Amino acid sequence: MTRAILALNAGSSSLKVAVYPETGDRPLLTGLADRIGAEGKLTLRDEGGVALPVAPGPLTTQAEAMRRVIESLRIDLPVAEIVAVGHRVVHGGPDRDAPAHIDDALLEELARYAPFAPLHQPHNLNGIRAALAEFPGIPQVACFDTAFHRHHPWVNDTFALPRAYYDKGVRRYGFHGVSYDYIAGHLAETAPHLHDGRVVVAHLGNGASACAIQNGRSVASTMGFSALDGLPMGTRCGQLDPGVVLYLMEQERLTPAQIADLLYKQSGLLGLSGLSNDMRELEASGTPEAAQAIDYFVFRLQREIGAMAAAMGGIDALVFCGGIGENSATIRARTCERMGWMGIEIDHHRNGSHARVISSDLARTTVMVIPTDEALVIVRAARAAL
Amino acid sequence: MTRAILALNAGSSSLKVAVYPETGDRPLLTGLADRIGAEGKLTLRDEGGVALPVAPGPLTTQAEAMRRVIESLRIDLPVAEIVAVGHRVVHGGPDRDAPAHIDDALLEELARYAPFAPLHQPHNLNGIRAALAEFPGIPQVACFDTAFHRHHPWVNDTFALPRAYYDKGVRRYGFHGVSYDYIAGHLAETAPHLHDGRVVVAHLGNGASACAIQNGRSVASTMGFSALDGLPMGTRCGQLDPGVVLYLMEQERLTPAQIADLLYKQSGLLGLSGLSNDMRELEASGTPEAAQAIDYFVFRLQREIGAMAAAMGGIDALVFCGGIGENSATIRARTCERMGWMGIEIDHHRNGSHARVISSDLARTTVMVIPTDEALVIVRAARAAL
Repeated sequence: MTRAILALNAGSSSLKVAVYPETGDRPLLTGLADRIGAEGKLTLRDEGGVALPVAPGPLTTQAEAMRRVIESLRIDLPVAEIVAVGHRVVHGGPDRDAPAHIDDALLEELARYAPFAPLHQPHNLNGIRAALAEFPGIPQVACFDTAFHRHHPWVNDTFALPRAYYDKGVRRYGFHGVSYDYIAGHLAETAPHLHDGRVVVAHLGNGASACAIQNGRSVASTMGFSALDGLPMGTRCGQLDPGVVLYLMEQERLTPAQIADLLYKQSGLLGLSGLSNDMRELEASGTPEAAQAIDYFVFRLQREIGAMAAAMGGIDALVFCGGIGENSATIRARTCERMGWMGIEIDHHRNGSHARVISSDLARTTVMVIPTDEALVIVRAARAAL
Repeated sequence: MTRAILALNAGSSSLKVAVYPETGDRPLLTGLADRIGAEGKLTLRDEGGVALPVAPGPLTTQAEAMRRVIESLRIDLPVAEIVAVGHRVVHGGPDRDAPAHIDDALLEELARYAPFAPLHQPHNLNGIRAALAEFPGIPQVACFDTAFHRHHPWVNDTFALPRAYYDKGVRRYGFHGVSYDYIAGHLAETAPHLHDGRVVVAHLGNGASACAIQNGRSVASTMGFSALDGLPMGTRCGQLDPGVVLYLMEQERLTPAQIADLLYKQSGLLGLSGLSNDMRELEASGTPEAAQAIDYFVFRLQREIGAMAAAMGGIDALVFCGGIGENSATIRARTCERMGWMGIEIDHHRNGSHARVISSDLARTTVMVIPTDEALVIVRAARAAL
């Protein structure tokens, strides 16, 4: 048998998996169980992206998805023995700034943070429980999306509410920390002068945020208490005047559940375009509403890059990552328009070819595209637990 | 009799007044009826700031306050005849970009915007009704805090919600427009090269916002739909993750009225310091909590100055106004720290003496202190109606 590490990311209706060798940075297998509970589908791919056979069976619960993944691994990687599991967990609470070994006490602690992330945390914990049942007796670790941000200065950690709310945990946690951790580590290895400087990272996926990273540490982020704030996202609103939520309650008479559904699932690019939450579809569609949704996305991103730079007293590098950041040359080019005042100027040929450095040689601020790798961060944490 | 203009600003429990001559920019009299309904107090001062006698009487309603002001004017300015009245009104709705003549149709229209500003608009309208009763038959105009911002580009006017909400009026209106209008006009007269450039104005009073003004027009503001968003204020929270409002509803079980009270009246500098909503008291107090509240105020302001500059593709001038902006050299100095990347560098001697230009001679960005004069903007609008 070959010893292997399993990385898991359990969402409300999805389970992302990656299997890595005990050493090495390339996965043996990656996969996704999608639409669990509905017409669920399990897809697994090998190192080269080729689809692999999957075990038959239902996909109506997270536990069933876990079982089918494991049965499929026996087919696809017959000599692999899973010796450690790493889990992505959205919320590690106010104090956890590093991955943690999973035991009953941790599960109990993490359940207490569910009110801070009611749409994500319970599903993450269900995934962990399913994996504990399937893999008893091997080390399992949790990697928190909040951990990378836990040393924010106080001014970036609090809201201007009565202090009792801060003490209760109403803080600007920030998320996507597993991705930012990867980017910071990558810069440390490949561009130490930038790692030691002031970097704004724009993680632009279906969820999106920006982070100010100075000397390798997060000092500010556009996401705060929930996964709603900051940049507009596929279906989430991003920055919203709290007065709008009051208006929705008092004037539109929406219930909290209806408001949560509106802000998490019907807003963002989908809400503005009336068409899709997918930037690729919007770029291709050409409707005026799609164009406006893209305009809004780009404008809010520019605004927040300015804000993140202000949080660090300047900017030495801008890094794009995430599905949109890595793949949309258009969004990158438009974001960098009218940013010369920040020393940002891109080379359109480099940008069009998705080069690693896309700024022009004379620009004061380095602009980069770095494919993020959250699974690898999780795998490394699991390895460290062996 | 001498013809005179009356400027009024009616709040929930206050009535601000200023009487100006028919021509000229200096008031004959200014005054404030404060804590109307409680242990109300009416104070009037002459041109030189000397307290004037006031008529006796109760102050339990806005109408009574209006009557006492008018009776006092008969004592203090016996030869003045009010020939026009200008009113400050918080909300002019999506379309009004200029002052408007007050008639029944306008009142009816403005009442429709009350749901957008439930804590301010009804009181503004009560003030107008009281003044219409006292001054029948003379021109009265309304000046809207939203008007200056009504030509924001769409990306600065919308939130990323389903488009139906934009159509219903859920927009980033922006406020303090009467003040920004004054500053823009002042720059046009005294520093036309800056007026034609990119200016960030920080209006820092008990309410606070910042505005990006390009070629004399507002292109973005930190305040949006309500008077809550953006910078932290005396008792208002400023920027707040919408997820926090959901948390307050779902986990803390607060009612909409309790949340509004929390965010409008118990938050901001007061909430963070646990001491006072008044920056002067915080600066004098020296408690760690007061220091943290000031840190937060300064940090969020720096962050939003960066964001406003990004909205314009750069910055040529930064203007401080409002009570804090005009009087606190400390807040100005701290805000301009670590802003060299934006070309901001102040001359501490100039700043300490509250000079009009407080940047150093070699700084790329001009930093100014301009005492704002909202009453004068209102008076000019009323004069124009004569």
